[in-house]
Amino acid sequence: MTLELISHKLCPYVHRAAILLHEKGVPFTRREIDLKNKPDWFVKLSPHGKVPVLLADGVALFESSAICEFLDETHPPSSLPDDPFARAHQRAWAEGATELSQALWNLLIAPSAPELDRTAVGFAAIADRVEQAIAAGVVAPERFERVHVYLAPSLLRFSIVEQGLRLQVLDARRWPRMDALARAIAARPSVTQTVPEDYAAALCRRIVDRGSFLAAKAARQA
Amino acid sequence: MTLELISHKLCPYVHRAAILLHEKGVPFTRREIDLKNKPDWFVKLSPHGKVPVLLADGVALFESSAICEFLDETHPPSSLPDDPFARAHQRAWAEGATELSQALWNLLIAPSAPELDRTAVGFAAIADRVEQAIAAGVVAPERFERVHVYLAPSLLRFSIVEQGLRLQVLDARRWPRMDALARAIAARPSVTQTVPEDYAAALCRRIVDRGSFLAAKAARQA
Repeated sequence: MTLELISHKLCPYVHRAAILLHEKGVPFTRREIDLKNKPDWFVKLSPHGKVPVLLADGVALFESSAICEFLDETHPPSSLPDDPFARAHQRAWAEGATELSQALWNLLIAPSAPELDRTAVGFAAIADRVEQAIAAGVVAPERFERVHVYLAPSLLRFSIVEQGLRLQVLDARRWPRMDALARAIAARPSVTQTVPEDYAAALCRRIVDRGSFLAAKAARQA
Repeated sequence: MTLELISHKLCPYVHRAAILLHEKGVPFTRREIDLKNKPDWFVKLSPHGKVPVLLADGVALFESSAICEFLDETHPPSSLPDDPFARAHQRAWAEGATELSQALWNLLIAPSAPELDRTAVGFAAIADRVEQAIAAGVVAPERFERVHVYLAPSLLRFSIVEQGLRLQVLDARRWPRMDALARAIAARPSVTQTVPEDYAAALCRRIVDRGSFLAAKAARQA
């Protein structure tokens, strides 16, 4: 089966699909598109205009969760456990991981102190839930399953903004399990080797360009 | 397996799970909660505070898509087709159906003419995609699969607001396939028998109470 992942460099949902492909050792190609200036072939392929799109033997598949299910069905072994209850919990975390991704982004690009305070509340609420999910064993730190694939793009971003912008977003005292998991995941080849070479720099630049209050404050203090 | 669906009367995502349970002929109980005044036992059960929650043998499962997957795995036959490509398309429509649901709601509760114009654009965009999905065979009118389960709660609402508020939201000339599918689905027992008896009245009342510009206009013209 030929697999081509239609991508945007900074998209965390594209990253999910790429991580799962890498974990499986399945060869695939990537094609980057400019979401602000979508090429005609892409608009024809993707009626809702979003990435990722996976072209599997030329058939366009959409939505990162549906793509992960497809890859697990066509390229075993599955990233889901066998037990239907555990599978349900991992699948539900597609939604939780999306919340984490959005909450982190909102925090990072908050343009003012009041907006930062507001987004910090939303971020803390979902970070508390991730911490609980690790404590409850839904996210097992010693394994790398579907739920890890969903969370990994956000977890990688914690070390990127720590190194690139001196932002310590994840308070290790409040979220110790998540902090440890984020550090382990930021060292995993399937996570680090599935982003472009300039990913960290491009991500930090994008955060600064969006007028990040946090990044500006850290730069002043440096 | 004992199954209890924790519900809110008007929630379209609860409705998805109830439709699939009814289609399977699986016995289940329901417990309604007041989302504005959440009972303690519910807050303990559901850290994100959302419905549906499916209590399966006492284990709490979240997110309507994860619940549908669980029910298909534990109570065959599956509502998904066998072909992995077709399965991927149907799963991707969980997202599309959610967009339809939100766009329809935004249109129905738009409080002013300019807001109605704005929400009508969003509604038309997703309605066009549903029409294309039916034309392309992704949503087959002669079957009732997972994608129909996802779409059904919104499709039922078209006839409810037509009968209860005299609102003809779905233009049958622009979206003839979707109009036909909506009328078929509004007559399907699994769709009509899985809402409370006062569902239509309660839904219409909620739309009016939210200050719907469309409903007020229709009432003036009546």
